[in-house]
Parts: sequence; structure tokens; C-alpha cells
Amino acid sequence: MRRSAFALALFLLSPVFSFAGGPAAAVIPQPVAEQAELLREGALRDNLSVALVESITTEVGPRRIGTAGDERARAWALDKFIELGFDRAWSEEFTVPHGWIRGEASAAIVAPYPQRLVVTALGYSVGTGGDLVGDVVEFATFDDLLAVPEGNSLKGKIAFVSFSMADYVPPPGGSPMAGYGQGTRARGRGHVVAAKRGAEAIVIRSVGTDNNRLAHTGSGYGYQDGVRKIPAAALSAPDAILLQNMLKRGKPVTLKLNLTSEITGPVTTANVIGEITGREGSDKYLVLGAHLDSWDEGTGAIDDGAGVGSMMAAAAIIGRLKKRPRRSIRVLLFGGEEIGLTGVRAYAEQHADDMPAQLLGAEVDSGGGRVNTLVSGVGEQSVPAVRAMYELIAPLGIEWSDANDAKGDSDMSVLGGAGMPALSFEQNSNNYFHYHHTPNDTFDKIIPEDMRYLTAAYATMFYLAAELDIDFRQ
Amino acid sequence: MRRSAFALALFLLSPVFSFAGGPAAAVIPQPVAEQAELLREGALRDNLSVALVESITTEVGPRRIGTAGDERARAWALDKFIELGFDRAWSEEFTVPHGWIRGEASAAIVAPYPQRLVVTALGYSVGTGGDLVGDVVEFATFDDLLAVPEGNSLKGKIAFVSFSMADYVPPPGGSPMAGYGQGTRARGRGHVVAAKRGAEAIVIRSVGTDNNRLAHTGSGYGYQDGVRKIPAAALSAPDAILLQNMLKRGKPVTLKLNLTSEITGPVTTANVIGEITGREGSDKYLVLGAHLDSWDEGTGAIDDGAGVGSMMAAAAIIGRLKKRPRRSIRVLLFGGEEIGLTGVRAYAEQHADDMPAQLLGAEVDSGGGRVNTLVSGVGEQSVPAVRAMYELIAPLGIEWSDANDAKGDSDMSVLGGAGMPALSFEQNSNNYFHYHHTPNDTFDKIIPEDMRYLTAAYATMFYLAAELDIDFRQ
Repeated sequence: MRRSAFALALFLLSPVFSFAGGPAAAVIPQPVAEQAELLREGALRDNLSVALVESITTEVGPRRIGTAGDERARAWALDKFIELGFDRAWSEEFTVPHGWIRGEASAAIVAPYPQRLVVTALGYSVGTGGDLVGDVVEFATFDDLLAVPEGNSLKGKIAFVSFSMADYVPPPGGSPMAGYGQGTRARGRGHVVAAKRGAEAIVIRSVGTDNNRLAHTGSGYGYQDGVRKIPAAALSAPDAILLQNMLKRGKPVTLKLNLTSEITGPVTTANVIGEITGREGSDKYLVLGAHLDSWDEGTGAIDDGAGVGSMMAAAAIIGRLKKRPRRSIRVLLFGGEEIGLTGVRAYAEQHADDMPAQLLGAEVDSGGGRVNTLVSGVGEQSVPAVRAMYELIAPLGIEWSDANDAKGDSDMSVLGGAGMPALSFEQNSNNYFHYHHTPNDTFDKIIPEDMRYLTAAYATMFYLAAELDIDFRQ
Repeated sequence: MRRSAFALALFLLSPVFSFAGGPAAAVIPQPVAEQAELLREGALRDNLSVALVESITTEVGPRRIGTAGDERARAWALDKFIELGFDRAWSEEFTVPHGWIRGEASAAIVAPYPQRLVVTALGYSVGTGGDLVGDVVEFATFDDLLAVPEGNSLKGKIAFVSFSMADYVPPPGGSPMAGYGQGTRARGRGHVVAAKRGAEAIVIRSVGTDNNRLAHTGSGYGYQDGVRKIPAAALSAPDAILLQNMLKRGKPVTLKLNLTSEITGPVTTANVIGEITGREGSDKYLVLGAHLDSWDEGTGAIDDGAGVGSMMAAAAIIGRLKKRPRRSIRVLLFGGEEIGLTGVRAYAEQHADDMPAQLLGAEVDSGGGRVNTLVSGVGEQSVPAVRAMYELIAPLGIEWSDANDAKGDSDMSVLGGAGMPALSFEQNSNNYFHYHHTPNDTFDKIIPEDMRYLTAAYATMFYLAAELDIDFRQ
């Protein structure tokens, strides 16, 4: 917080904030900086973001695409935007080729030691058509499964990838997310790879960092034309360990799996958008993203109620200022993020012509933890301006990164990939991967003070971005 | 650890250990003290207790009284005693008046915000006979429910006791277990009290300290003759909070509960006993207790696999010494602890005549955490001897308590109540109440080093008690 105190001192001493940056040095007029500070401090005392997560988790709950909860969530968001004083709110429909009925999932060891296991169907898995029984063949990693030649060597077997995200040690210099990346390879493609080797089904250790007896679901429709569709499920970490301990004894271990899941025809849903209109109109705007859909076993509090709550609250807090900022701010609540960013892809198509109108974007999809580092992803000339804006959130305990390589997180990465300038607000995890995609993703996992810090960071930065006349593409 | 270093220095300097204690001062001959030290240090390097928990949780799993797992557990214990070098092992049957089929449990909010809740039947609850639907009436504590006059005011309603063990602050000087005691009042008697007020069913917030979406079961047959038997269930903490948040909105909240539980006729099971026979025969012995039964949703690792593993290992380690200690050591693995100490009660009846043969007892039923404090419960004259024995476990980081009021823990309290001298090894909780009575009670919750410390404390103290000729009743 040393840097923060320094920044604060600067505000108090100088009539205009200017930061070293050569000819393109950014200048934040004192009234704007003062407004940003007031807004930041006000946001820290404002529990709106938390109340919004409480509201969506209590009144809507799970909201997987194509379910009744999805429909309720869209109605909730439209109502809430208006209630919060947004100037307009609307839906933009899109259709995905497949819906999915989760059904029920059960699993049990049949021999040598009969025990029930906790299992969940991976997203868009086919059902088992009754009990599917087979001996288990363990693969320590997805690469070990890939190393089996294609053919029929796993005929009659159930492939089991026991890779543990919790125990994974990334290579030197590797990202802390490397374990998630490793785990999601098997989660997303395991059923195709195992089927090509003859397996009847695949089970994986849940991709998560916890040791709760709750399984992590995930992944969207991932079958491949011409490859047999086999069921795919995830075991909770304790059950994966139990299965491994049985296998260590060297006797065949027979597993019974029963999923009543079903893939259905096309499903229509929508992105929901709310706008705080700027004093110079709607034709240029900043975008704050989150996803409205969730997996269906928890109530979608950290994934991504926290994003919905913080983004709606940040914009609403800016919208309450006496004087509207220059530019508009749109909160984009995407549908279908969990099944492969389908909502934002539809948005990108529908808005292909007005992409230049989108001045700057960011998304929260990592839970409700505090921001620890701001990374810009803007034109070289505007970096000093963003650095100057950053000084106003430094008092929140946020570091600055010089990388300037942000491309937008989660859904926003699609817009970032299409050339939209982006900011990445890297967050503390608050045990995100203990809970995400499990029944445990519930409101009690939200830490209210952290949510307020998170919201304050976005409100401050996006107020500044909306007020200052900066071309972030330059 | 200051005291420990001091104790160690004493051993190295003096030929015979004598501790101040007046005329009854205890003296531990140097060879015995040295043997105890070697045994303690060996136990710290011996993973047997952990391996036993791994074995029972993997090869047996859940073992609720009257289930197939109960039967497998008894066979496992008899085999394991012999495999571990116990001199004899046997079962002692007993019968309880009721068995119970858990069946399936489900719950959902019907209105105003439809959501599925995570629920578990409390032990020996009757079923709902299909969907039971009623509006929820919340009581913050069991006392608030008790305060409702008997009659029909809760007719058509489902009573909900939302008391939270996690949030409970004990009164000054109160036991840290006070919250558990408060919670178990509603768990054990809520269905009778609610029925007397006309309620159709009762749901309680799980009695536990976690916020996982897993419900804590518990309690045995608790219905009362002449009072209508209503179903009783526990919600996970996040679901209790969700329900409270819905109720706060002031509209009626309608809950649907479906339990297919069923109370059955008498069930016969057994206590399983293993003996390390002392060099002076079997007629006097020390007893190490744990319970073999478990609840049925986890694999019974902390409750009470940790007790089974540490007690069997402590005795086995003593049994491996070249020279058998003077007295015998019996490991008593009780059945039916979870439904009201039924196994030990049967044992106390069956052994009424040989109670004086039981020189000293202790039980592990608080998970696999390290011992932090030793409390004696012996005759006044033998306190100095126990204090002297204690000095040999002080290096494990264990404090001495002067209270001398131990009555035996869990099952052992019945024998302590019948006059048997007891020791209480108070343990660190290792999050015991996060996991107990839930699916989360699995092997991965065991911390191996802590189990070795736990086992070393018992092995050392019970070696000394078996070797030294102390009348703990005096």
C-alpha cells in the first residue's frame, strides 16, 4: 500500500495530474480525478454488488442455457437493469445447435469393494442407456491416454484419467492456471480420444483444487462426427483417490455408471444488455462483460454471479453520478459462456459493424476476489493514459503490470481478439477452483468486502475511461 | 516444547525417574522409560495407523449398523487383528430394536423461487410417503421451537430450525463444543417437539462448521411413543442460508420434501475385540476404544476410522515389543456408537462381572488430529503416576491438565460412568465438524503425520500403563 499512499498524496498536492509519458503523457483534470476518488470510496461502502449476487442466486439460482432458470435469469436481468437506473436494457437472441438434459448420475464400484461414488455428468454427455459396467483402466494424464494407439484396446473398458489439478506443479515460469489447462484437456476431449481407442465411457478426476466430495462438471458439446459418442463423467476428488487406492491393490476394479443425460435439438437464448447512456450519446461505448448462464448444480454465485453483480453495480454506481460521463457504458451479460463462449460469438457476429464503437472492454469471470494486478491491452500511445487512470485504483492494493498484452478475459477475449482494446483485472482466487462447476458454488462463498473492492476498481476505471477522451486503439 | 526438552534432559541424566508427589510419588524404572521412549519415537515413524484407515475406508467404506458394510467391517476387523499379531480376536453380538433403510432424500423450494436443495434424512427418520409439501416456519433456535405451545399451530407447516453451529458464540467460559451441543438438541429431539406442535416435518440446518453443500446426518431412533412420527431432515449450510434468504423476503416459502426412509425391525450386530495378551495373562487389561460403525454417506475416515486405525496400531506396536508388558491390552471396536452408544451399552451389560478387570480406558472418536492435552480420570493416589507417565508423551507437544475429571470419551464414557478409570486425550480438531456425518468424511481428510503423533501418544501411555503395576482406581 506504499504506492497507494504516494498516489493519494499526489492528488492532494497537484491541481492537475500529469504523469511522465513523453509527448503522449496523459493528463487527468483534477475534477475528474476527484470524482473518481469519491466514486471509488463510495463504491467501497456500497454493498450493491453483493446484494445483486444474493438476488440472482436466491431468486433465480442455477441458469444453464436452455433451462427454465436461463429464462428466469434473463427476465431478472432486464428488470434489474431498469430498477438500477440503466437508461435502456434489451435482449439479443441467438440459437445454439444443441440443448442438453442433465438427468441423474450415479456410479458405484461393483468389485472388488462395493461402494457408491459421487459423480456428475460432464456437460452434453450422452446417457449410458441403463447401467454401463466395465473394468477401469487408469491413465495418470491425458497424454497417457493419447499415447494409446487408436483401435480397440480399451474395448469393454472405462477409461479413467486421474490427473489432479490440486497436485499439479506447473513447470518453472508456468502459469498458475496451467493445471486447469491440463485438466480441461481431458474434460473437453477425453470422450472423443477414449472412444477412438474403443472405451465404453470415460471418467475423469474433477478439474478443481478442493477435496470435497462434490464433482465438478464442465465443457460443452464436444463430440466429433464419425466418432462413437461415449458417456463422460467426473468423479469428486475423494472418489478419484478412492478409485486409485482400489486400483493400487492390483485386482480388476469394476465400475458401474448410470447417466440419464440426453442431448436435444436447438435452443434459443439471449445476451442481455443494459446501458448507462453517456452525455454524448450511445454511439461510442465501453463494455463491461460477465456471463449470465451458469452450470446447474450450484447457484452460480462465483461463476459468474460475482461478474454479473460487480459489473451491474459498477455501471449503476457510475450512472448515479449527477453528471453522466461522456461515453456510454454497456453491461453485456452473455448467455452460453459455459458451453464455449457461444453468447459472445453471436454478439460479435451481430455487432460486426459496430465493433469500432466499442472503445474498451473488460470482464469478470474469476469469482468475487479482489483485483491484485491491472494489465492493459491498448494501443502504445494510450498506455500512459491507462497508467495515469490506474493510479486512482492503486489505493485498492492493485499492482500495475507493464505487459500491455491483455486481450480480454473469458467472453471478452472474443472481442479482444477482434481488435477491441481491453483491460485485464487479475483477481485473487478466493478458492475459485474449489467451488466452480460444483453444487458448492453458492452465495456463502462470496466475501462481501472483496466484492466491494472488486466493484470499486471497475467503477473507478470505467468512470475515467468514459469521461476522458482517450482513443485506446492508438 | 520447552517442557518437552526438559523432560528429555531428565531421561538422559537420571537413572530412575521420580517425580515429586508426596508419599505416593510414582517411579518409572529407567528401562521402562527408555522402552517407552523408543516406542514413542518408533510410532512416530510408523504409518500403520494411516494404512489401517486407508484399508477400512477403501475395502469396507460406509458401515452403518445393520448394513452390508457393517458386516464387512466386522470381518475386516477380525482378520486385521490377527494379521497385526493380536493374540486373539472375537465378536460379541448384540441386538438393537430397530434397523433403518436410508432410501433417497430430495428437497426443493416450490415457491416463490423454485430451486433444488441438498438435504439428507436424519438417522431413523420415517419417510414422507411421497412428496410432502408445506410452508416453512423458521425458528432461530431449538428453544424458539420449544417456546411454541403444544397443539396444532404448526399444522400443515414444515418447521425449520436454522441454528448455525458455525456462527454460535459460546457464553464466557463455555466449552467450544457448546455449539455442537446446541445443534444436536434439535437434531435429536426436533421431530418430537415439532410433532407436538402439529408440524408435518422438520428440517434443520446441518450441525457442522463448514459451508459445503453437503448435509450432515446424525442421531438414532428418537421417536416417542404416543407422538406422531414426522420426517426429519438436515439441509446443507448453503441451503439453510438460501432458505433463510428467501424467507427474509416476507413471502410464504413452500418446501417439498421427499424421503424414502424406512424403520425396520431388530438388527443384530457385534462389538469386535482384539487382545494383545500381557505376560501375566488376560485377567486384567487396559481398554482402547473406538467405534467400528459409521454413518453411511462418507467412508467413515475421521468418524471413526481414525479411532479404529490409531487404537489398533497403538496396541499392535506394543504387541511387537520383544517383551510383552505385564497387563493385557484390549482394543474394543464398538458397534452402534452412532445411534446412541448401543454397542458399549451391550458390552457393559455383558461384562458387568468383569468390570474390575478393566484397569484403565480411553477412546479416540474425534478424528485423526494430534493430542494437545492429557486429562486423567483416576484415583487421587495414582495421579502422580499418571503425571510421571505423561512426561514421556510431553515431547509430542502435549500439555498436562490438573483437572483429573476425565470420565472416558464417546463409548468409553459408559465404562467411565461405571467406575472404570479413564484418560482423555484431547485432540486438535483438524476440521472434524466440517466433515463428520457427511459424504465428505473420506480418507483424504486424514493428515498422516498427525495420525502418527496421535498413535504415538496412545502407544506410549498404554505401554506404560500395561507395564507399571499401578492401581488407577486408588
